[in-house]
Amino acid sequence: MYVSDIWHPCSQMKDYDDFKPINIKSCKGSYLYCNNGDKIIDAISSWWCKSLGHNHDEVTAALIAQVNQFEHVILANTVNEKILQLSNKLISLTPHLNHVLYASDGSCAIEMALKMSLHSRKIKGENNKTQFISLANGYHGETCGALSISDVGIYKSAYQAMLFQCHHIEDMPYVTDINDPLWHDCSEHWNVIVKKLQPHAQKVTAIVVEPILQAAGGMRFYSKDFLYRLASWAKQNNIHLIADEIMTGFGRLGKNFAYEFADITPDFVCIAKGLTAGYLPMSAMLTTSDMYQLFYDDYEKGNNFLHSHTHSGNVLAASVALKVLSILEQQKLYQRAINIGDYMAKKMHAIAENTGKIQSIRQIGAVVAADLVTDDSQKRYGHKIYKTAVTLGALLRPLGNTIYWIPPLNITFETLDELADITEKALLLNVVKRAII
Amino acid sequence: MYVSDIWHPCSQMKDYDDFKPINIKSCKGSYLYCNNGDKIIDAISSWWCKSLGHNHDEVTAALIAQVNQFEHVILANTVNEKILQLSNKLISLTPHLNHVLYASDGSCAIEMALKMSLHSRKIKGENNKTQFISLANGYHGETCGALSISDVGIYKSAYQAMLFQCHHIEDMPYVTDINDPLWHDCSEHWNVIVKKLQPHAQKVTAIVVEPILQAAGGMRFYSKDFLYRLASWAKQNNIHLIADEIMTGFGRLGKNFAYEFADITPDFVCIAKGLTAGYLPMSAMLTTSDMYQLFYDDYEKGNNFLHSHTHSGNVLAASVALKVLSILEQQKLYQRAINIGDYMAKKMHAIAENTGKIQSIRQIGAVVAADLVTDDSQKRYGHKIYKTAVTLGALLRPLGNTIYWIPPLNITFETLDELADITEKALLLNVVKRAII
Repeated sequence: MYVSDIWHPCSQMKDYDDFKPINIKSCKGSYLYCNNGDKIIDAISSWWCKSLGHNHDEVTAALIAQVNQFEHVILANTVNEKILQLSNKLISLTPHLNHVLYASDGSCAIEMALKMSLHSRKIKGENNKTQFISLANGYHGETCGALSISDVGIYKSAYQAMLFQCHHIEDMPYVTDINDPLWHDCSEHWNVIVKKLQPHAQKVTAIVVEPILQAAGGMRFYSKDFLYRLASWAKQNNIHLIADEIMTGFGRLGKNFAYEFADITPDFVCIAKGLTAGYLPMSAMLTTSDMYQLFYDDYEKGNNFLHSHTHSGNVLAASVALKVLSILEQQKLYQRAINIGDYMAKKMHAIAENTGKIQSIRQIGAVVAADLVTDDSQKRYGHKIYKTAVTLGALLRPLGNTIYWIPPLNITFETLDELADITEKALLLNVVKRAII
Repeated sequence: MYVSDIWHPCSQMKDYDDFKPINIKSCKGSYLYCNNGDKIIDAISSWWCKSLGHNHDEVTAALIAQVNQFEHVILANTVNEKILQLSNKLISLTPHLNHVLYASDGSCAIEMALKMSLHSRKIKGENNKTQFISLANGYHGETCGALSISDVGIYKSAYQAMLFQCHHIEDMPYVTDINDPLWHDCSEHWNVIVKKLQPHAQKVTAIVVEPILQAAGGMRFYSKDFLYRLASWAKQNNIHLIADEIMTGFGRLGKNFAYEFADITPDFVCIAKGLTAGYLPMSAMLTTSDMYQLFYDDYEKGNNFLHSHTHSGNVLAASVALKVLSILEQQKLYQRAINIGDYMAKKMHAIAENTGKIQSIRQIGAVVAADLVTDDSQKRYGHKIYKTAVTLGALLRPLGNTIYWIPPLNITFETLDELADITEKALLLNVVKRAII
C-alpha cells in the first residue's frame, strides 16, 4: 500500500503503488528535471497553465521585484498600482467588459459569475429566473456551484446531495478543426437543440460554456457557429452568457479568448490558469458596466455583491500576470500557438499512420488531441500510456483514453519532435488487448 | 458615481464615492505606506492572514530562493522536496491526521472536506447520511458548498436557489474570555442544544465549526466545553467533525489550532490564511488515515476522490509556508499571541471606560473585539469609525457595528499603543445619534 502525507489531486492513491510520483528537482522551459536525473517534457503545461514554460527569467524577475516592495494587502478598501494596471489591461482585452473581480482558484471565478447572475435577477425583480443551462461534457471546476453546472460524471456523481439541478445541452456539433463544415454552419444541430432549450428560457438566468473547447470533458472542440447561435438565443431570451475561459484564455487557441471565434460578447468571462502562466494562483471574473451599475447603490438597500476571498487581487500574482500578458504580446505567442498547433496536428496524424493506435484527431490552436484505439475492456489504456511516456521522458496525462498535447506556447519545434517520438514509442510499447469476439 | 476597473471584494462600490480606496505604495511590518505619504497600521492583518506582518525579510528570502529554482508543477503525479516537507510538518502539528490535500482559496478547502465526508458515506454504504450541521452565525466561505453551511445572511440570502439545506445550532454558549464560567461548563446550554440535534443524528454526515471563534459572524467566542461536548456527541453518532481553522489556525488564539482548547480530534481540519502568513494563496485540508484507506482502492471501483485545483500544492506557496511555520516556532509567536492579546484586552477596556462608546469586550489570544454602543437607527456607525480611523492612521474594518483588532502577531507594543489611541480618537470623533424615545 502506497501511503503518502500528500493526498494528490485528481488521483487514486493506489495508482502510485507501482508508479511513484515524479520527484521534481528543478524546471526550465518545457522541461522538468527529476531527482533521479531524468528530464521530462511537460507536454500538458502542468494542467494547461504554463503557457510560458517553467522558470521564465522575465516573469521571475517581475515577481522578485514585487516581493521586495510588498506582497499582499487586503483588496477591500485598498488599491495599488499593479492591480490597477492589471485590471486596466484585462478590460482592454475585452472591450465590452469593464470591471474585474478577483479570486485565486478558477472554480471561485465561476462561482462569482453564477452568483452575480442570480443576484442580479433579484435586484431586477426577475425572480423566476433561477436556473442554469450548460453543455453536456462541460467542466467548470469542483466546488459545489461549479460542479453543479459541470457534466463529467467521475467528478460529480458522488455529490448529488450537495448540488443544484442544471439543464445540459446534448448532441453538440463537435468539430475536428476549423476546416470542418460544422465549424461554419451547424444549423441542423441547432434546430434540434433550440427546440429543447426554448421551454426553459423563462426560468433561466445564465448559460455557462467553455467556449470552443471542452477540455476536461475529453478535449472536444465544437462549432463556432453553435456558440454564435447560442449567444444570440441567450440575448433574445434575456439570459446571461458566462464564458469559462479558464483553460482557453490568453492564447491557447491562438486568440486572447476563445469566444472571439464566434464574435460574441459574453456577459461574464472567467479566467485563471494562463493569467499568471501557471506561476501563482489567480483567477478573475470580468463583467459589464450594466452589471456594475445594477449593484451600485446605497449599502442599506442590500444590493451588495459581497463574495470575497482573502487573496483577491494578490499583488505578487498581479505583478506576474502583468508581465505574462506583456510577454504574450511582445513575443507574438498568439500567432505562435497557431504555428505550433499546425505542426502538432501534422505530427499526431503521422503517429496515427505509423501506429494505427490513435483516431479522431482534432486540433485548434495549440491543442491537439486523439482517442486511443481500444475498447471498453481497456478503460485504463490511457494510464498505461502515461506510465510508459513518463519513463521515456514526457509527462502526458491522458483523460481516460484520450491523449493530448498542450505544451507551453514557447516550446521549440525540436522539443515537439522529441515529444512526438516519445508518444509514438509509448503507443508502440503498449499492446492493446482487443475484446475477445 | 465612483467607477473603478476593480470591483473590490466585500464592497458596495458606492461606498467609495466619498471615501476612495487607500492607495498602497509599500508595506513593512504592521504598517501600510500610502501613495499620499500616509502611514497606516494594518490592525486587521489584511483580513486576518498576515501573522508575521508585511515584507518579512526571511519569508521574502524563502520565496526568492524557490522561484529561482522552480515555481509550479502540477501536483497530480509529481512531488517535490518542499511540498513533502510542508505536508510532513503539517501532520506533525495534528498527530491524529496524516494526509493533506491542497487548494488555493480557503473556501475550496471547506468544499473538499464537505465532499469527502459525503463521498465516504457512499463508499461505506451509509447512504442515508447526506446532511450537514453547522453553527448559527458561522462563516465558512462563499462558494456554494461553503456558503450553504454558513449562516451570515448578508453573504447568503440572495443565493438560496443554489444552496443546499443545513441545520444550524442556535443559542450558542458565547463567552467573553477563558475566565468566563461558561468556558469550562456549558451543560445548561448543551442540554437544550442536544435535544434539538438528536433527531437529525441518523441523517447527518458532518458537523462543521469554526472552533472557539466565529470571526465573520461577529467576532464571537464560544465555550471550549461546548466544542468538547459537540465533538463527543458527533463521535457517538458516527458524524464527522470538520474544523474550519482557516482564520484561527497557526497561532492566532495562542495555539497551533483553536480546536486544541477542547482537547478533541476533528476528522477534517481546513487551513489557509496564516499558513502562508498572507503572502500567497494556499489552503489545505487535513484528514485521517481511516479516510485515506477508505478511498484507497482499485481505480475501476470508482472510489476516487478527484477534487482538484490547478495550483494544488504550488511550490512557491509551499516554500513560504515552510518558512512561516518555522518562524512562528522559533520566535515563540504562539506565546506572543497570548501576551499581546492580554495587552490589547486591557487597552480595549480602557477605551470603553474613557469613551463609553463600546461594550461587550471579548478576547482570547490575539483577537479582541467590542460592540459599538448604538442602536438600530445607526447601522453604519461601524463604517464611519472605519473612515475616521483610516484618516487617523489605522485600518480598522468593523464587521457591522463590531470593532476588533487582529494585528500581526509580531506587532510591537508601541504600535499597539498607537492603535489604541487612534481607535479611541475615532470613537470620540464620531457622535452616535441615539434613537428618539
